[in-house]
Amino acid sequence: MAPVLSRSETAGSRRTVRIGFLGFGTVGQGVWKHVRENRRRLEARLGARLELARAAVRQAGKKRGVALDAGQLTTNGREIVEDDSIDIVCELMGGTGEARELTLEALRRGKVVISANKALLCEHGEELFATARKHGGQYFFEASVAGGIPIIKALREGLVANRFPLIYGILNGTCNYLLTRMEREGLAFEPLLEEARALGFVEADESLDVDGWDTAHKAVVLAWLAHGKWVRYDEMVVEGIRKVTQDDIAHARSLGYAIKLLAVVKRDFASNRLFVSVHPALVSRRNVLANLDGPYNGVSVTGDIVGTTCYIGRGAGQDATSSAVISDIADAVLWLQRCEPRRDEPSASPGVGREPACGILPLENVESSFYLRLMVKDAAGVLAEVASVMGRHLVSIATVLQKTAATPGRACLILTTHVTNERAMKNTVEELAGLESLLEPPFLLRVAAFEE
Amino acid sequence: MAPVLSRSETAGSRRTVRIGFLGFGTVGQGVWKHVRENRRRLEARLGARLELARAAVRQAGKKRGVALDAGQLTTNGREIVEDDSIDIVCELMGGTGEARELTLEALRRGKVVISANKALLCEHGEELFATARKHGGQYFFEASVAGGIPIIKALREGLVANRFPLIYGILNGTCNYLLTRMEREGLAFEPLLEEARALGFVEADESLDVDGWDTAHKAVVLAWLAHGKWVRYDEMVVEGIRKVTQDDIAHARSLGYAIKLLAVVKRDFASNRLFVSVHPALVSRRNVLANLDGPYNGVSVTGDIVGTTCYIGRGAGQDATSSAVISDIADAVLWLQRCEPRRDEPSASPGVGREPACGILPLENVESSFYLRLMVKDAAGVLAEVASVMGRHLVSIATVLQKTAATPGRACLILTTHVTNERAMKNTVEELAGLESLLEPPFLLRVAAFEE
Repeated sequence: MAPVLSRSETAGSRRTVRIGFLGFGTVGQGVWKHVRENRRRLEARLGARLELARAAVRQAGKKRGVALDAGQLTTNGREIVEDDSIDIVCELMGGTGEARELTLEALRRGKVVISANKALLCEHGEELFATARKHGGQYFFEASVAGGIPIIKALREGLVANRFPLIYGILNGTCNYLLTRMEREGLAFEPLLEEARALGFVEADESLDVDGWDTAHKAVVLAWLAHGKWVRYDEMVVEGIRKVTQDDIAHARSLGYAIKLLAVVKRDFASNRLFVSVHPALVSRRNVLANLDGPYNGVSVTGDIVGTTCYIGRGAGQDATSSAVISDIADAVLWLQRCEPRRDEPSASPGVGREPACGILPLENVESSFYLRLMVKDAAGVLAEVASVMGRHLVSIATVLQKTAATPGRACLILTTHVTNERAMKNTVEELAGLESLLEPPFLLRVAAFEE
Repeated sequence: MAPVLSRSETAGSRRTVRIGFLGFGTVGQGVWKHVRENRRRLEARLGARLELARAAVRQAGKKRGVALDAGQLTTNGREIVEDDSIDIVCELMGGTGEARELTLEALRRGKVVISANKALLCEHGEELFATARKHGGQYFFEASVAGGIPIIKALREGLVANRFPLIYGILNGTCNYLLTRMEREGLAFEPLLEEARALGFVEADESLDVDGWDTAHKAVVLAWLAHGKWVRYDEMVVEGIRKVTQDDIAHARSLGYAIKLLAVVKRDFASNRLFVSVHPALVSRRNVLANLDGPYNGVSVTGDIVGTTCYIGRGAGQDATSSAVISDIADAVLWLQRCEPRRDEPSASPGVGREPACGILPLENVESSFYLRLMVKDAAGVLAEVASVMGRHLVSIATVLQKTAATPGRACLILTTHVTNERAMKNTVEELAGLESLLEPPFLLRVAAFEE
């Protein structure tokens, strides 16, 4: 077969891809900002020039975190979708009225529409996809479910070999945040909801969050993606979290459970039946999702071949959602050029996007706490000797435990250190190994301190 | 711009993609079997015919779980790579000698090579990619890191917007299995290793597993993917788990940690320095990865935009690895046709791959245990009345707790049930709601029983 053009061959004729925005709130501004900041790297990866073209907003004069030229703003969304020079439309306005009409018009014109609008997708997905297909457009929606977690791509591409008997997850960060605070702080639902409202954590139509409808939209999208069926609300169980009390949380805990709002998409292949539900559930503490706190989303996907896989990340917010929208932009740019990326290029590489080559971090700069086990002579002064070696290398001791070993005359010293660096610890261990009172080579473990 | 051909337009001229195998052990047979079983569905998704062509093996006469015709087997790998009718070569033989030579030859002929061979990739990646690029071939490697978890795709595509200050994870299932059993059963390392050897859980060269080299290969691949730099072994810290004792595990536990073999890829963007290490580490029990047991792998990826995301799944084994190889086959088929998939098609859809339309599971068939909270009159006989309603609907009670409520004359009844179905519970709750002794509507939660 004929070889596909490699990027170097097409570099001379790189096309420009123009991106327009419908809605320019938190997410739209995030996408604009991050594309602008990462433009060179993305352009090198994708073999095309990216141009942030225009944004349609409700009020042109409003003060925004990302300032656009007056010419880049319009209050008329049709100007974006009717502009033939715009290839990609990011629909980030929300709602199912004007958003639907503008999306359909963009698709009729063969554009790629990228959306985080799960309500629109859930209620009009069939119409959107039929229109895209008829007119050669595309509708991408990675940001519609589970924010920054690339769950759509995982289901559709990474797990393409599989059928999916069970998918379940925590898909609404607001509910998870409320349930987590109820559990941690022993507070009642209503005052917490009041506080979350004041902080702007709750959708304007709060029943989307707390009555489970936002989760239901996402569950319908996942069910369609995995099973090709649009499930209607009246075919589902949808229950929210308003009635969960402190008593429930306490009783669940005493039984070994946490209470989480779950979306469940279950397919029984034997009877060929699908069931989608959204409800608060008791989740065993041994389950990864039971321990997901605050704004995190998590999705467990069981494939008939791969077994159970699980995906965790921030489910909402400007940056996480922008990350998902930008991954759709990248896929759209490749699709517009009709090429898959080459797999011989890393995410970042020297020279790509003008990024300088990176070096190796010196050992002095690699820091952590350490755990040190020493088998020593059970004699006076040994601990002092060990401590003084550590002190000389500026390695500060956090905890000490001395145990008599099974063999007479031997003792086991377990030390942990405060944060120090690999170089200091390497030198410490080398010097300790030379001590006459050390009966075995020192044994070292690092303490992972990656929690945010 | 010109619209891309949609699948229906190309359906009449679907090409046939032929797949050859180098090595036909556990993973090769798994890929062959699952592609065969899912062929129609995959062909519909990918718009091409898939043909499982030939496999090169060491011994042609050996008995295998997947039986091929004599004509499909060869003991000469060159016959696979030199066959111009074969488009995709799955290199599943392992090693860095013959595997390298055959891979290079396939790439020189413009084929797509799909590999699970992290040692080859780690040691010769630069040469493989340069050859692929020069001759128009491709080298795909989703199965090389973290088995069935689509981590390569997530890093490269799903998180394309991001740079990666920190990636860490558990990447060797054998070490995790050994450490988990040491912790759970209080057994020493050596006898467990002996048992794992007997069960065939350990690589022939066992230092790949227990001395951290397999994890190191995977860490090098992730570091290259995220940062575009091939890190040499002498630039890394690589330590295995042989010296970890029961004492260490007990002390770690008392400090709130589990001991896990971690790969860590850390990039300091301020100093533009990268560091890759593999070592056993104390991981806080609050970290998801500390609770990953047995053969599971897990990877935590922090992106500068998306924040921290985490991916969990089986890290090895026939099925999980096959799932990853097949996702590469799917991407290769699209690449060979120079098209991205349409996004308006779900993973499974009525008619696709001759799959019948699925229906909705009736409530009688949706099963779980339930948690039921009832506010009742604090009077004799109320519990018996509730229990008899439940019995009538064949809902069996698992636990009961009765609490006096704050308001005099009221009591709170908390019941959990054995597994029953939604219909029975719906009817139960409706009947309970009608009881004169019920002072508030019943409140119901489901118990998630998804643990494998």
